Amino acid sequence: MRVITSRQEIQMISLKHKNEGKSIGFVPTMGYLHEGHLTLAKNARENNDIVIMSIFVNPLQFGPNEDFETYPRDLKQDEQLANNVGIDYLFVPSVEEIYPNSPAIQMTVQNRVNVLCGKKREGHFDGVVTVLTKLFHLVMPNRVYFGLKDAQQVSVVDSLIEDFFFPIELVAVDTVREEDGLAKSSRNVYLNDQERMEAVELQKSLQVAKVSIQNGERNMDKIISLIENHLQSTTSGAIDYIEMYQYPSLKPLIEIKGKIIIGLAVQFSKARLIDNIIMEIA
Amino acid sequence: MRVITSRQEIQMISLKHKNEGKSIGFVPTMGYLHEGHLTLAKNARENNDIVIMSIFVNPLQFGPNEDFETYPRDLKQDEQLANNVGIDYLFVPSVEEIYPNSPAIQMTVQNRVNVLCGKKREGHFDGVVTVLTKLFHLVMPNRVYFGLKDAQQVSVVDSLIEDFFFPIELVAVDTVREEDGLAKSSRNVYLNDQERMEAVELQKSLQVAKVSIQNGERNMDKIISLIENHLQSTTSGAIDYIEMYQYPSLKPLIEIKGKIIIGLAVQFSKARLIDNIIMEIA
Repeated sequence: MRVITSRQEIQMISLKHKNEGKSIGFVPTMGYLHEGHLTLAKNARENNDIVIMSIFVNPLQFGPNEDFETYPRDLKQDEQLANNVGIDYLFVPSVEEIYPNSPAIQMTVQNRVNVLCGKKREGHFDGVVTVLTKLFHLVMPNRVYFGLKDAQQVSVVDSLIEDFFFPIELVAVDTVREEDGLAKSSRNVYLNDQERMEAVELQKSLQVAKVSIQNGERNMDKIISLIENHLQSTTSGAIDYIEMYQYPSLKPLIEIKGKIIIGLAVQFSKARLIDNIIMEIA
Repeated sequence: MRVITSRQEIQMISLKHKNEGKSIGFVPTMGYLHEGHLTLAKNARENNDIVIMSIFVNPLQFGPNEDFETYPRDLKQDEQLANNVGIDYLFVPSVEEIYPNSPAIQMTVQNRVNVLCGKKREGHFDGVVTVLTKLFHLVMPNRVYFGLKDAQQVSVVDSLIEDFFFPIELVAVDTVREEDGLAKSSRNVYLNDQERMEAVELQKSLQVAKVSIQNGERNMDKIISLIENHLQSTTSGAIDYIEMYQYPSLKPLIEIKGKIIIGLAVQFSKARLIDNIIMEIA
């Protein structure tokens, strides 16, 4: 595995491989790699000639009161993990490398963002699509891999690729979970012991909702109440939101039918956790 | 030459050629081809394995009071001209092909646009960068060719490529002129006979300014007055603007030094014509 820090170098490497007719799989990350990221990497490894992973904590997608400075970082360990799963190139640019000068052109996401996490994270997805556009042009992947844990991000990346005709296939990979069901997340390290035990209830509450829908419940308020009651009686966290939409459009649900998502966020003392469930209802 | 109307097809063709290691030159146009476009095409032909030209009158870059509906079109003749200069693929998509659904993501140009033509054409360059981003992803060119007649467009495309790390070289080609010096333009057909004779004075007025600068004039107001007086005494058109900037940044000129542009626009009865001169001053 080669570690690359220069944007010109990674672009030249990608161009070389494209000219050789090689396929490139790309796993963009913010580092502090866990099993979730590594699952994306393994998927990429199976289906592409060349696999490139990026590690870049993107300041543009953090709000002024968010955790850009304290976002967990461990490049040494990341390098080892990336190497172990067979990454060919690990692209680790500095902030200056990705934002060398003040940009003339702004990208703004207008749909799919005023729901779920996007509602309170103004500008977050603008930062996501901006950095991805840059990275896509540097890496020129045939396939890009994202985890469904951030299902809204998958939805927005789907728009980005569709709106601008990127010649890239978006591969959405199921959320990877701890044995007890907690979705893997770099932010789980912020949980204290008690909260770590409670955190499993996020997914459990969604499973309760799923069973109720499978048993015929079609009243959205009742389904959301079920989840709310479950979380309130089992965790010390504050519920940020519990919402249901069509997926991947994230349009309002008129009736519970077709592909839907139920997403939720819970604020613990130092960590805000998200989880979701995507179901297909006949 | 093959004429392609489907975005999927042109993208597959480009991908195929990229995988063969072929270089692609791209000439995006709005059609009604004249010697200016053909000069771009000849440049592209000389320096690339494959040359793709697009013809697309992009509604997004026309304002509500501009001439989208009446913009001159002649596809039959364009096909013949494109074929004559050795274009390999002529991409002629419909509006629906380029804008298949309402986009989720908006691109906004924030620098280099509140001067020259951009000042009065709100949103024009947003439309330009949006369609170019789409076309660049479909055509995947190594080099893209633009004429310096629209020097502001060249400046904005320069930003687009720089900001988002497109793996594309921008080739800016000198304005092609009629024998009498009038810059070639699809909109010249709107001029009546009298105006056609007067239109030559746009470039003449800029040459007057150039000589004055070469003779040592460094007062911007005086230079602009020279041009203004020339145009007023020789044409029936209404002067829209006469402006001087640094080039290509289009930042204000503090002093007349380095690479500068003088740009102007004159409104005739049915045609608004632009011209410019770019000079390097020691």
